[in-house]
Amino acid sequence: RKGRVDLGFGAGGRAMAQLISELFLRAFANDWLARGDDGAVLPAPAAGERLVMATDAHVVSPLFFPGGDIGSLSVHGTVNDLAVMGARPLYLAASFILEEGYALADLARIVESMASAARAAGVAVVTGDTKVVEQGKGDGVFITTTGVGALPAGRDPGGARARPGDVVLVSGRIGDHGMAIMAQRESLAFDSEIVSDSAALHGLVEALYAAVPAEAVRVLRDPTRGGLATTLNEIAAQSGVGMELDEAEIPVSAQVQAACELLGLDPLYVANEGKLVVLCAPEHAGAALAALRAHPLGTEAARIGCATADPQHFVQLRTGLGGRRMVDWIAGEQLPRIC
Amino acid sequence: RKGRVDLGFGAGGRAMAQLISELFLRAFANDWLARGDDGAVLPAPAAGERLVMATDAHVVSPLFFPGGDIGSLSVHGTVNDLAVMGARPLYLAASFILEEGYALADLARIVESMASAARAAGVAVVTGDTKVVEQGKGDGVFITTTGVGALPAGRDPGGARARPGDVVLVSGRIGDHGMAIMAQRESLAFDSEIVSDSAALHGLVEALYAAVPAEAVRVLRDPTRGGLATTLNEIAAQSGVGMELDEAEIPVSAQVQAACELLGLDPLYVANEGKLVVLCAPEHAGAALAALRAHPLGTEAARIGCATADPQHFVQLRTGLGGRRMVDWIAGEQLPRIC
Ligand SMILES: Nc1ncnc2c1ncn2[C@@H]1O[C@H](COP(=O)(O)OP(=O)(O)OP(=O)(O)O)[C@@H](O)[C@H]1O
Ligand SMILES: Nc1ncnc2c1ncn2[C@@H]1O[C@H](COP(=O)(O)OP(=O)(O)OP(=O)(O)O)[C@@H](O)[C@H]1O
Ligand SMILES: [Mg+2]
Ligand SMILES: [Mg+2]
Ligand SMILES: [Mg+2]
Ligand SMILES: [Mg+2]
Ligand SMILES: [Mg+2]
Ligand SMILES: [Mg+2]
Repeated sequence: RKGRVDLGFGAGGRAMAQLISELFLRAFANDWLARGDDGAVLPAPAAGERLVMATDAHVVSPLFFPGGDIGSLSVHGTVNDLAVMGARPLYLAASFILEEGYALADLARIVESMASAARAAGVAVVTGDTKVVEQGKGDGVFITTTGVGALPAGRDPGGARARPGDVVLVSGRIGDHGMAIMAQRESLAFDSEIVSDSAALHGLVEALYAAVPAEAVRVLRDPTRGGLATTLNEIAAQSGVGMELDEAEIPVSAQVQAACELLGLDPLYVANEGKLVVLCAPEHAGAALAALRAHPLGTEAARIGCATADPQHFVQLRTGLGGRRMVDWIAGEQLPRIC
Repeated sequence: RKGRVDLGFGAGGRAMAQLISELFLRAFANDWLARGDDGAVLPAPAAGERLVMATDAHVVSPLFFPGGDIGSLSVHGTVNDLAVMGARPLYLAASFILEEGYALADLARIVESMASAARAAGVAVVTGDTKVVEQGKGDGVFITTTGVGALPAGRDPGGARARPGDVVLVSGRIGDHGMAIMAQRESLAFDSEIVSDSAALHGLVEALYAAVPAEAVRVLRDPTRGGLATTLNEIAAQSGVGMELDEAEIPVSAQVQAACELLGLDPLYVANEGKLVVLCAPEHAGAALAALRAHPLGTEAARIGCATADPQHFVQLRTGLGGRRMVDWIAGEQLPRIC
């Protein structure tokens, strides 16, 4: 049992207090957390700003993958949900469900990675929780992160705000995160060539708002579970519009394309953890695209289609061969535990 | 598989969207959640107020117990961490980790119970997340709740603020929650007689602040995992004081006492989910105690001891027989998954 998580680490006693202070408080180091109280007391946002709150549980398997691990992913995932609401991410709460017997050295790597992702994103992990479940009642480590951010006045992107004619932009190649996980799970030969795109998108979002009027940014979304196809269907349904996409314009890397063919997957349905979808007023789409491309996370950004007036809210794809096909929501359970 | 959680409910597609809208959005019904965006946009707290943020994962086993279930518990647990920071609880984020195969009817009961606890506490579940793990990689349902509250100016209770001479109050009988769980787990004959105290404490805290100057409220804490003994040791360590308690003054019900004896447990170490510990300036202790007693959740509140000047930060108990014993932190793993 030495060097492994045991049930006592979740019992509220000295062992738990020691784990929290030596591992978590040390890695996340900040004054809010150091107080050791039941919660964190934080300054309110500036006058005129609203709050944004978002949460995600992370249950990705395997816990370590090319381009990241559950620790960094759990920071990026929640930062990105704040970012696509238009908010500046400020604070994270982190709750850990640990499985008895998990190696403490691996937990420490995860926590370090989480702490460094949070530092890089400029957010602080201000409060947390640690529970332990018996072996066979969990799977190593699950992490829920909940974020709070500040929403500047005038910004209000939302899935329901797309209008016919709006231009659809995507910030780069799709499917990298999901295929990095799948390739590793299936031990594909090229597994190490595909690297997750896991990244924090709030800098990219700020660059976009700096380039176009806030009103022109109709919808922002991170195409995670279900991939680009599902995200666009969600937006179409919320806004009551259709979409027409150009297959040839959608960026996909050759490796992801090849791995998808091997596994019988469609990159349109594969999860991303560092990509931004933008629906933008047509008259500002050029400036928006240029702003994305000028940012390190958007160099391969592309204009992939536009919203249409369609009472059935269909998302359609013009294929390379000049045909058309319907792009439906993701079906079934093809990619479990991708995030 | 019909009527049970399947992996597709976590895949991001139509099945997940349907589960979210028919189960979660319907039960938690509010406009923030109904937007269906990546997060919730919330009004900032009033001028002069600060934010408080707290999080807890809930992994209690069994999921249903006398006096509550994981749903109501996950509301009370986080509301109470906000309340003991002095804050008015406002918003909750809820993240669910579901095990494949779990009965949807039971999940619905849990979600209903959670929604009704949130309504009763006056907090809204404004955003959420749903993940599914394979059978054997989870345990039915885990719920992480994260709360945001508003802290009125002038309030600043904290574990480090106790001073020698401060009076220790507890709001009622201790050990009910933990023994309700243990009695059910061990199928003790009197299991149904012991009912969890799970309750939201922010009303009790408001009654306290209405009765004494904010400055007199030095420390508030909810004695959860590790029980009253561990909570008082935490406060002693944070504040650099000792404590002297009167065993005879600590309220414990006869059933909890009997169940503890049967199982070889000490009620001082058994978890509570609806009790408040207060360290109060001595000149206001009478008013504080009266205010607690006048509230439905504090009718059996008691003055159980006081903080002392002790460089070793020991918590000591004057026993009924006139002796003294040390009250240490909880040891080991005696009560796993109590919350
Ligand atoms: N994994 C973690 N990362 C960062 N901080 C943590 C972590 N786990 C606990 N903490 C911090 O440690 C302190 C004690 O946490 P703990 O969970 O014991 O408090 P609590 O929520 O009041 O108790 P309970 O969880 O029994 O209800 C808090 O300040 C909490 O924010
Ligand atoms: N258990 C739940 N309770 C309440 N609301 C939920 C729950 N699960 C999801 N939601 C809500 O449903 C919507 C979609 O959630 P979803 O998790 O798909 O979004 P996301 O976080 O952007 O995607 P991902 O989790 O793949 O990163 C959000 O508005 C979210 O708040
Ligand atoms: Mg607490
Ligand atoms: Mg998300
Ligand atoms: Mg906690
Ligand atoms: Mg999202
Ligand atoms: Mg708590
Ligand atoms: Mg989510």
